[in-house]
Amino acid sequence: MLLVNGANQTNVDISDRGLQYGDGLFETIAIRNNFPLFFQEHLQRLTEGCSRLKIPTPDLQVLSSEAQQLCQHKNEAVLKIIITRGSGGRGYKQPETLSPTRILSLHPFPVFPKNYPLHGIHARFCQTPLGINPALAGIKHLNRLEQVMARAEWQDDGIQEGLMQDVNGNLIEGTMSNLFWVKNGQLFTPALINTGVAGIIRKLVIMLSSQHGMSVQEQNLTQTQLLAADEIFVCNSIIGIWPVIRLADHDFAIGSKTRQIQTWLDELAHETYQTSQ
Amino acid sequence: MLLVNGANQTNVDISDRGLQYGDGLFETIAIRNNFPLFFQEHLQRLTEGCSRLKIPTPDLQVLSSEAQQLCQHKNEAVLKIIITRGSGGRGYKQPETLSPTRILSLHPFPVFPKNYPLHGIHARFCQTPLGINPALAGIKHLNRLEQVMARAEWQDDGIQEGLMQDVNGNLIEGTMSNLFWVKNGQLFTPALINTGVAGIIRKLVIMLSSQHGMSVQEQNLTQTQLLAADEIFVCNSIIGIWPVIRLADHDFAIGSKTRQIQTWLDELAHETYQTSQ
Repeated sequence: MLLVNGANQTNVDISDRGLQYGDGLFETIAIRNNFPLFFQEHLQRLTEGCSRLKIPTPDLQVLSSEAQQLCQHKNEAVLKIIITRGSGGRGYKQPETLSPTRILSLHPFPVFPKNYPLHGIHARFCQTPLGINPALAGIKHLNRLEQVMARAEWQDDGIQEGLMQDVNGNLIEGTMSNLFWVKNGQLFTPALINTGVAGIIRKLVIMLSSQHGMSVQEQNLTQTQLLAADEIFVCNSIIGIWPVIRLADHDFAIGSKTRQIQTWLDELAHETYQTSQ
Repeated sequence: MLLVNGANQTNVDISDRGLQYGDGLFETIAIRNNFPLFFQEHLQRLTEGCSRLKIPTPDLQVLSSEAQQLCQHKNEAVLKIIITRGSGGRGYKQPETLSPTRILSLHPFPVFPKNYPLHGIHARFCQTPLGINPALAGIKHLNRLEQVMARAEWQDDGIQEGLMQDVNGNLIEGTMSNLFWVKNGQLFTPALINTGVAGIIRKLVIMLSSQHGMSVQEQNLTQTQLLAADEIFVCNSIIGIWPVIRLADHDFAIGSKTRQIQTWLDELAHETYQTSQ
């Protein structure tokens, strides 16, 4: 199911700057019980991203209405929203009047062979580095070749995520997820000042932990330092929170802090459903 | 005029990874007298880019034939070739069998208000930095948000190009061109090891200069150092060589080395036509 600027169509014009230059951004949203989860948070990030990229923010009421239209009667699904700068301009120069393209698409919720939130996953370190550019850091933009190249590094289905470092050797995030770790009772996550995607679940984990008196420190760290962590987990809007139980031949326990944060996030998701109904 | 995988169509499927992730690359080629200029060099770069991105290289004979089909009876035009990884896969993970998308489009040759190769241009320094990532440096890939953001920094039609530095303050290239400068008789161009697009005209300028005993040094430099240059020029496949006569309130003469290289490049272009006919 697809809506392009409100119309049922399955394609975009070749001249769209999303295709020509990756000139746009996207959101990936979990649908549960006909409801786009944490939708307001996704709309807020989308708005902030449009502002930073100087793309006019789409009408959020229209966007919400279209999302509802696609989500009805969907128990579990994934909603992807792409906003591009639209067509036109001369080369990189954008046209004076922008007509952004708005693409909503619905996808089956991925089926995983195990209950990864419960049992944890195996992860690896990727070779492909994340480039450094504060001007784009944090934005979920359409320039994702680094993630594509990193994800192409392994075919082993026993490994569910790869962790990426920036060109200076700081671990930043997974190919599709944000990274947290616990050391001596303190919860950490990498700073995303120079690169990385500021994930919605990352933001909620920081908020929930803070609300419960468990502060999160944003900190750079190396692969060696991560291997000395007590707990590790990765998170995104579709997978929720996946504990990492094996990374580069090191085993990790699923710790109490990870379990606590999973519980808080589940509770928040259920509250959000109920408020919406 | 458009050909998508050989068919006359004006659009691509939403699921194409070129749109979803900027997962692909492109070439922009000048057409003169029905002939795609320096076509072999463009095909070679396209092949190298596909190899680095692990996208199967399209059949070059098919590509050449399609290019000829679009270029016939075109005295002056611009041919753009986009190759994407195609559709499919799960998120960033690519499908096991790739079916790349091949897009050829023809555009009017840009009309400039003055003869810039003859009279030179005004340039500026851009604020938007180029990210650093050796894994993607040199490739003319579809992740071009940095160039879009840099080009959006000015509206003044009196300025024809903006020069970009990397996040470490090294000047690298223009938003759409490569950069050369002359100091004390020596020709320089920035190294493109960490970022930048390895342009076809850049490569030819280096080759031609070397053939004529004028070596080119690849070197990092700052804005201040560039402002102390004796000659500056930018180049790409469409504009050829544009001398820079004004940059950040500094005036520059169009020097003898710039004129010499313009002559060599013109001669090479004419030889190329004749060989092809």
